[in-house]
Amino acid sequence: MKTIKIGIIGAGRIGRVHAENIAKFVPEMEIKTVSDPYMSGETLEFLQRLRIPGLVKDADVILSDPEIKAVVVCSPTDLHAEYAIKAAQAGKDVFVEKPVDYRIERVREVIDEVKKAGVKLQVGFNRRFDHNHRAVYEAVREGKVGRVNLIKISSRDPAPPSIDYVRVSGGIFYDMMVHDFDMARFLAGSEVTEVFAYGGVLVDPAIGEAGDVDTAVVSLKFENGAMGVIDNSRRAVYGYDQRVEVFGSEGAVMDGNDTPSNAVFYGVEGTVSDTCYKIMWDRYTGAFAAEQKAFASAVINGTEPPVTGEDGLYPILIAAAAAKSLREGRPVRIAEIE
Amino acid sequence: MKTIKIGIIGAGRIGRVHAENIAKFVPEMEIKTVSDPYMSGETLEFLQRLRIPGLVKDADVILSDPEIKAVVVCSPTDLHAEYAIKAAQAGKDVFVEKPVDYRIERVREVIDEVKKAGVKLQVGFNRRFDHNHRAVYEAVREGKVGRVNLIKISSRDPAPPSIDYVRVSGGIFYDMMVHDFDMARFLAGSEVTEVFAYGGVLVDPAIGEAGDVDTAVVSLKFENGAMGVIDNSRRAVYGYDQRVEVFGSEGAVMDGNDTPSNAVFYGVEGTVSDTCYKIMWDRYTGAFAAEQKAFASAVINGTEPPVTGEDGLYPILIAAAAAKSLREGRPVRIAEIE
Amino acid sequence: MKTIKIGIIGAGRIGRVHAENIAKFVPEMEIKTVSDPYMSGETLEFLQRLRIPGLVKDADVILSDPEIKAVVVCSPTDLHAEYAIKAAQAGKDVFVEKPVDYRIERVREVIDEVKKAGVKLQVGFNRRFDHNHRAVYEAVREGKVGRVNLIKISSRDPAPPSIDYVRVSGGIFYDMMVHDFDMARFLAGSEVTEVFAYGGVLVDPAIGEAGDVDTAVVSLKFENGAMGVIDNSRRAVYGYDQRVEVFGSEGAVMDGNDTPSNAVFYGVEGTVSDTCYKIMWDRYTGAFAAEQKAFASAVINGTEPPVTGEDGLYPILIAAAAAKSLREGRPVRIAEIE
Amino acid sequence: MKTIKIGIIGAGRIGRVHAENIAKFVPEMEIKTVSDPYMSGETLEFLQRLRIPGLVKDADVILSDPEIKAVVVCSPTDLHAEYAIKAAQAGKDVFVEKPVDYRIERVREVIDEVKKAGVKLQVGFNRRFDHNHRAVYEAVREGKVGRVNLIKISSRDPAPPSIDYVRVSGGIFYDMMVHDFDMARFLAGSEVTEVFAYGGVLVDPAIGEAGDVDTAVVSLKFENGAMGVIDNSRRAVYGYDQRVEVFGSEGAVMDGNDTPSNAVFYGVEGTVSDTCYKIMWDRYTGAFAAEQKAFASAVINGTEPPVTGEDGLYPILIAAAAAKSLREGRPVRIAEIE
Repeated sequence: MKTIKIGIIGAGRIGRVHAENIAKFVPEMEIKTVSDPYMSGETLEFLQRLRIPGLVKDADVILSDPEIKAVVVCSPTDLHAEYAIKAAQAGKDVFVEKPVDYRIERVREVIDEVKKAGVKLQVGFNRRFDHNHRAVYEAVREGKVGRVNLIKISSRDPAPPSIDYVRVSGGIFYDMMVHDFDMARFLAGSEVTEVFAYGGVLVDPAIGEAGDVDTAVVSLKFENGAMGVIDNSRRAVYGYDQRVEVFGSEGAVMDGNDTPSNAVFYGVEGTVSDTCYKIMWDRYTGAFAAEQKAFASAVINGTEPPVTGEDGLYPILIAAAAAKSLREGRPVRIAEIE
Repeated sequence: MKTIKIGIIGAGRIGRVHAENIAKFVPEMEIKTVSDPYMSGETLEFLQRLRIPGLVKDADVILSDPEIKAVVVCSPTDLHAEYAIKAAQAGKDVFVEKPVDYRIERVREVIDEVKKAGVKLQVGFNRRFDHNHRAVYEAVREGKVGRVNLIKISSRDPAPPSIDYVRVSGGIFYDMMVHDFDMARFLAGSEVTEVFAYGGVLVDPAIGEAGDVDTAVVSLKFENGAMGVIDNSRRAVYGYDQRVEVFGSEGAVMDGNDTPSNAVFYGVEGTVSDTCYKIMWDRYTGAFAAEQKAFASAVINGTEPPVTGEDGLYPILIAAAAAKSLREGRPVRIAEIE
Repeated sequence: MKTIKIGIIGAGRIGRVHAENIAKFVPEMEIKTVSDPYMSGETLEFLQRLRIPGLVKDADVILSDPEIKAVVVCSPTDLHAEYAIKAAQAGKDVFVEKPVDYRIERVREVIDEVKKAGVKLQVGFNRRFDHNHRAVYEAVREGKVGRVNLIKISSRDPAPPSIDYVRVSGGIFYDMMVHDFDMARFLAGSEVTEVFAYGGVLVDPAIGEAGDVDTAVVSLKFENGAMGVIDNSRRAVYGYDQRVEVFGSEGAVMDGNDTPSNAVFYGVEGTVSDTCYKIMWDRYTGAFAAEQKAFASAVINGTEPPVTGEDGLYPILIAAAAAKSLREGRPVRIAEIE
Repeated sequence: MKTIKIGIIGAGRIGRVHAENIAKFVPEMEIKTVSDPYMSGETLEFLQRLRIPGLVKDADVILSDPEIKAVVVCSPTDLHAEYAIKAAQAGKDVFVEKPVDYRIERVREVIDEVKKAGVKLQVGFNRRFDHNHRAVYEAVREGKVGRVNLIKISSRDPAPPSIDYVRVSGGIFYDMMVHDFDMARFLAGSEVTEVFAYGGVLVDPAIGEAGDVDTAVVSLKFENGAMGVIDNSRRAVYGYDQRVEVFGSEGAVMDGNDTPSNAVFYGVEGTVSDTCYKIMWDRYTGAFAAEQKAFASAVINGTEPPVTGEDGLYPILIAAAAAKSLREGRPVRIAEIE
């Protein structure tokens, strides 16, 4: 088995998740160095247990290490583009967490620099690698549903983030629904051309005061004539609710939520089964590993990564259009953005 | 058990369905007379087998019969209002098939004449009586989902109607989605205030040539802040697909399709269960009986029918707004209609 | 449509169920007379509402009526055989409720008399006509599971019958599991050759004092080498639990319980759906109608009824073997019975 | 986190599975040495990738290493007892794969030696740690089903083992159903007192020629009065089918099979979902990790392991009784064994 050495920039939650998944499930990638200016003792211990030899503060240690072939960028969002560009310029293949950046021109810059440097770029839309969504995708690609007519996506978080986070998140379309915009493109196999957004503050007034909505329904039109709809809520008391449905000329395919077990209890009061997982990391645990395996494969075999820079850009454009639609109370074409 | 005598105007498909359901399942209503100017031999035989004594051409036989307390109007749509008004003026309680009329002023006339006559009026939105949708409704009314935030309705026909029918149907919003507009109000317990419609011709170009769309996604805003979305398709190859979902602050409740059996086959190629029913009459068979039982109860006990004249009017207003939204490419407030 | 006149002997619970189902769903059979020596006012009113013209005390009115072509025997169990034989001798086709009789020689007599008289005999094993079990059966007959290897049947009542009834019921194997013995033969397409029974008193000690068990597990061997198992309980708090499974060389097919609705609630505490029906009449309502339609078809078209006298006999033989097995603590061959 | 050093004896399939699971998911156990007299190059590479420092031929390297606190015995079955005893005598805690041995006296010896040495012993009944079975178990232990009345277990392999293996396997009761005997005790919370076995050769005549059966139905009686049934087949074409059900005075709880995804396709021909996993390692992957975590916890915290030596012995006694029952055609009490 051919293996490569990699570095991870950022050891926050998502950085640690990638480190753990790569260490356990991606033997073809050897994590040589993880950098983070603020590593807690707990984080250090966690990474040491994964037997990662280099734990440093300065990302330059990674960027300047000729042994390191690829970099996984897990920094705060506003530094994604900077590190991605630096890694590309250093000749390293880049995996960058989503969103690449909230600023469209910054995303374009990353794409341009990557192209110039001739390196690979993969964007962290991990849900594409979820076993359920992937099975839906494959059924669609195999032509089982025929021509795609409708796409429906429900995506609801178990609880809203902190108000501090809401303030800097860019809003629900950039921060939360961006995943669903990606999923919609992924499943439709066609570009979104127009959106119309309804949104409201139904979960927590503080979210409204912070300038965002917490519940939204966005209709989509695709280039191939298909239509779609995405609904988001910042709080589903029953857990992390993630379902997709594709309806076409030859049938429909849909998935549901995973649960901790499939045991069912039949009692006087009803038939009771498990609720879905309460947290993202449990639901998408396999997806994080699978996206890194895919990145490793692209890097090692010199193939195109399955989630490209353009795949990172389009959902941001759609998010911008959705935000504009909500502000202006009218459908907005993606072509209007920029 | 108190019983009343009723008459049925119209012995087309829906008239025969009501006749059969009343004869079998609503012993408190005795069908004295069915009128239809064009009854085939087969229809006559069918109604005789139900032991209905009066089979006549002229609706006036019913309208002028003092023994008949209530009339079920199953005429062609454009005569619904006329017969409903005549029945009301004759002092009879009225059940009228949906839509009351495509013309809003005509619906209002019916409502006014019914009020003037002091009789009962029930409109044939049968899906409210479906066992699955009813269970969703009851969970919502009992407060199980808390405050309603989102409503999702999928409604797909197994095959499009004839192009001749499409031409006179008033279009998908009046003819098909009108049921879902009713369901949306019913489940939300709040009025729709605005809609935005996407539509396209994805099933059959002939439908487009007839001036209609065959696939549509309509977003809804409700007075209480909730949002919703309805999707319709004129053709789902796997059957008559009817599902609703209500999401709120305390949970979600959703239903699925009924199937001929729940047998499941585990084979090499997959786990296979029945597809949903292929035709409306099979899926909603219990609902037709239940709505007539409810009508009988309102008539006999002098209570308010569960689907009023206003319930007949609002979905038409929403349909008009949806049609306008699709034409003008913008959200349309219900208040704009009229 | 060809129709025949029939009579029903016995207007207890099952007699009324058959009367209602035939009146509503079997237009090819016209109920001319129902006899019962003890008809309450309520029963009379119920049967009058079904527009049955002859309501009499004496079964001879039916047996001697040359217009009546077929008789449905719903008398107390110990009179089943007597009426069935009399009806046969009167040249009438016979439908007799299960069990034909607990005494094997009596069942044989019925079979012999029917043969002598050249009339049709159908036994009331209604579950064969249930939509779910029927779908399993058809999958097996179509060869979907290949060679049948295993049969599993769970059959649990929502509550035990009265102790008075238990005392005269013949015991759980004759009264309750007899249905499952029939189902086992029906699904396997092969005769049971041997059984082994475990039984216990786990539901109510009074059942034990009455000389019966309330919980039983019976293993079966079939002539074709397949094996099976049936479990019965007199009390499942969650309802009337009826499931079958057939496993073979090419797959497995199984069914589940029907529920009043398929609505599902997702809440903090779990995902909750309906419990199964609580009473037999709700679960098997369609089955009762279907078995009478099948009887009507056999009578009118002169074909073999789908549940023959032998089908009525074999489950009794198996019940006898199971009871013997439980008493003697050893496997008992069906050939040992008699 | 406290950690211990362990050794693994045997690097066949199950040895490698334990090595991988411990390396990935049980950071509290550090694998110092793996011994196997016949390690292929592939196995060596596999274990090196897990960064296991000591890869040796001779188990004595492990047994004599004072740093090694606990030993995981994955040798061929006939050496389980020998290594378990040697490890105990060397003062090491022992995890031994199931079955401890087919010979009852050998199992007793292991139990005795372990007791004498004062070390811990855990037996590898991994299914107890499966997330679905565990959820059923917990529902039962929490009292949700009330008093346990019935236990049903289906356990079917996707394909029979080689005939060579069948010849030395001890037979279906020792090799395959032993897992289900353990599961039955585990779920019932009561000892099996008697069994009755039916068995046949329905899958492959060669299995019969090798002296074994390939399909079996075994009824069980428990000390607390409950009854149970287990069915086994050596070949289910649709996969590795593993389901349990516990029925009691207050309800029932049952589980089903896991599938690669929960995507469902609705097409003209039916509604199709995934078949269950085809191989044990996929279904029980989490269970293998969980049992080692439990062993680590018992070793480190000095608590009783969750699957004791007695838990290893009883299923063998039940298997012996089942084999005797099949041979002699009569129910066999466990007390008869020995």
